[in-house]
Amino acid sequence: MTTSSKNSNIHAVLLVGGKGERFWPLSTPERPKQFLKIFSPKSMVKETADRISSLIPKTNVHYVLPPHLVDSLKQEIAGVKNKNMIIEPQGRNTAPAIALAARALRDEPDAVMAVLPADHLISPERTFLADLKTAARLAKKGYLVTFGIPPDRPETGYGYIEINKGQPLGRRGFKAKRFREKPDLPTAKRYLKSGNFFWNSGMFVWKVSSIIQAFREHHPGIYKGLLDSAALSKAPTLRSYEKLEAASIDYAVMEKARNVAILPAKFRWDDVGSWSALERHLSKGLDKNTRIGKLIVLDSEGCIAVAPQGEIALLGVRDLVIVKSGDKVLVCAKDRGADIKKLLARRTR
Amino acid sequence: MTTSSKNSNIHAVLLVGGKGERFWPLSTPERPKQFLKIFSPKSMVKETADRISSLIPKTNVHYVLPPHLVDSLKQEIAGVKNKNMIIEPQGRNTAPAIALAARALRDEPDAVMAVLPADHLISPERTFLADLKTAARLAKKGYLVTFGIPPDRPETGYGYIEINKGQPLGRRGFKAKRFREKPDLPTAKRYLKSGNFFWNSGMFVWKVSSIIQAFREHHPGIYKGLLDSAALSKAPTLRSYEKLEAASIDYAVMEKARNVAILPAKFRWDDVGSWSALERHLSKGLDKNTRIGKLIVLDSEGCIAVAPQGEIALLGVRDLVIVKSGDKVLVCAKDRGADIKKLLARRTR
Repeated sequence: MTTSSKNSNIHAVLLVGGKGERFWPLSTPERPKQFLKIFSPKSMVKETADRISSLIPKTNVHYVLPPHLVDSLKQEIAGVKNKNMIIEPQGRNTAPAIALAARALRDEPDAVMAVLPADHLISPERTFLADLKTAARLAKKGYLVTFGIPPDRPETGYGYIEINKGQPLGRRGFKAKRFREKPDLPTAKRYLKSGNFFWNSGMFVWKVSSIIQAFREHHPGIYKGLLDSAALSKAPTLRSYEKLEAASIDYAVMEKARNVAILPAKFRWDDVGSWSALERHLSKGLDKNTRIGKLIVLDSEGCIAVAPQGEIALLGVRDLVIVKSGDKVLVCAKDRGADIKKLLARRTR
Repeated sequence: MTTSSKNSNIHAVLLVGGKGERFWPLSTPERPKQFLKIFSPKSMVKETADRISSLIPKTNVHYVLPPHLVDSLKQEIAGVKNKNMIIEPQGRNTAPAIALAARALRDEPDAVMAVLPADHLISPERTFLADLKTAARLAKKGYLVTFGIPPDRPETGYGYIEINKGQPLGRRGFKAKRFREKPDLPTAKRYLKSGNFFWNSGMFVWKVSSIIQAFREHHPGIYKGLLDSAALSKAPTLRSYEKLEAASIDYAVMEKARNVAILPAKFRWDDVGSWSALERHLSKGLDKNTRIGKLIVLDSEGCIAVAPQGEIALLGVRDLVIVKSGDKVLVCAKDRGADIKKLLARRTR
């Protein structure tokens, strides 16, 4: 069989939701970040699917997404089957999305399910797949495994997970000691120095039965809404889904569970969470500005200029993000990218 | 006669050339500033023509312009006659353009000719026309009259003209004492305080014979190229025109002539020489940013945002000019508008 080298006991669950705000105006609700082609000629969701294709057969790759992104996904993932699309009635953060996926896979309780956001940059593929297999082995033992990313800078924009060095698991894993919120800079520097703190990658590997059990224990609301026997007797509707708490999986489950394992990642990872992340992945020109598209510069540096079509000209400015998409233009201080959501909230006023 | 109130002894010469660089990317070589509709539903050239229409008959209104702007002018000035368009083979600054106009009017040596840039803001119309008549009276006496604009700020972007207070001319004019280059700020402050210094408006009123004589005396090159009897025997060609010095009329004539009169203007004037001038003419929003088109703002002030079509969003920035026109975007420090020419010179590299 052609899939002989593939592991049919692993399912991948790609999270394809998202509001499309962080990369506005290039991203929009109809074209969120995972559908952008910023770093390669392929969209990020296609990159994510291709990355696992040598390990996990297509029939085991599932996409959780809202109804309005179905057509976009079909365009990106040629031949994707309807049964591989798990439709969220609406975006309600990661916990309900993951519960929906667990529900869809409930008939294979011992199967391993890898939850992968569709909008992260990961390389090299081979290293990632090796780590994924290592994580799957830990998951088989009943752990809720999360990849911990070794920090290379005192990042204040991510949550951290502290490992329990005294409790190694398998060859490379550790029991989790504690989840930490986004730190201030001195704390982030301390985390970086200690070596016991890892970035929370938002990528998880567990058995279907383990995560269902974890919802049952730690978030009865979502469990009752989607996973108990009464809930399983009827399809989730927009109305029933709206009642679920829009909680992150970290908050709903991971911070509370005692069987959480951290696997320090060997692969390179970036969630590319805001425009300023582009500086880490695109080369700067001689003029010290990062660009996508045509750029003219005089006496300007440290800027990120994005105009896939058209032309941007900078004169006497620094440390700005400038994005032109269609008829829309964003001009943003480089350290304010996280506030684009707030900015967009003003559009409807 | 319907034109009985109009003065057929005055001609208007509207300068319609220009590279379209100062207001790039809204202005372009094909659509320089005088064709923009920034401050009113009418273009600036149409405003200029309409402003004088009650005083000067249409047959006496001449437009100096390069060939590629002829169609645009016809669209703006309905019914403009070919004989009222004086075609510059190419843009070579104001002195050759004015000499071309004087050449076209040479058969009326005693007629008064008012040279008016087509891209200045002037109001009120009635005051302007009264000043124009006053200037024409001085011109009739043989003076080369220029409107001096009483400064209301220590502007360092304009040239100044010093009047000779001891030599009043007519009721309101003065002999010119000296032309001054763009001053530094302390000098500009001194000029402002003294009351004897006026901005050089670039608007001139003189008899046809006076300006021809002035070229003869002060710029023999242009005189021989366009105005002496040998030159008059043949039409100027691109080749002959290219040989003329691309000099301003100030440099070629006004700074040297001894019969220059200054008429302090009673009208309000702005040459709107750069994007930052928009702040003086458009109202700021409550959020302290000047706009044309749709603007969303968070924590940003002192910006000038121009997007006749589309939408600009500002986050955490200040004192910037942002202009979106078609697929082009300019982001410029507000005090660097004068360097757009330098910026554009980089486009071809």
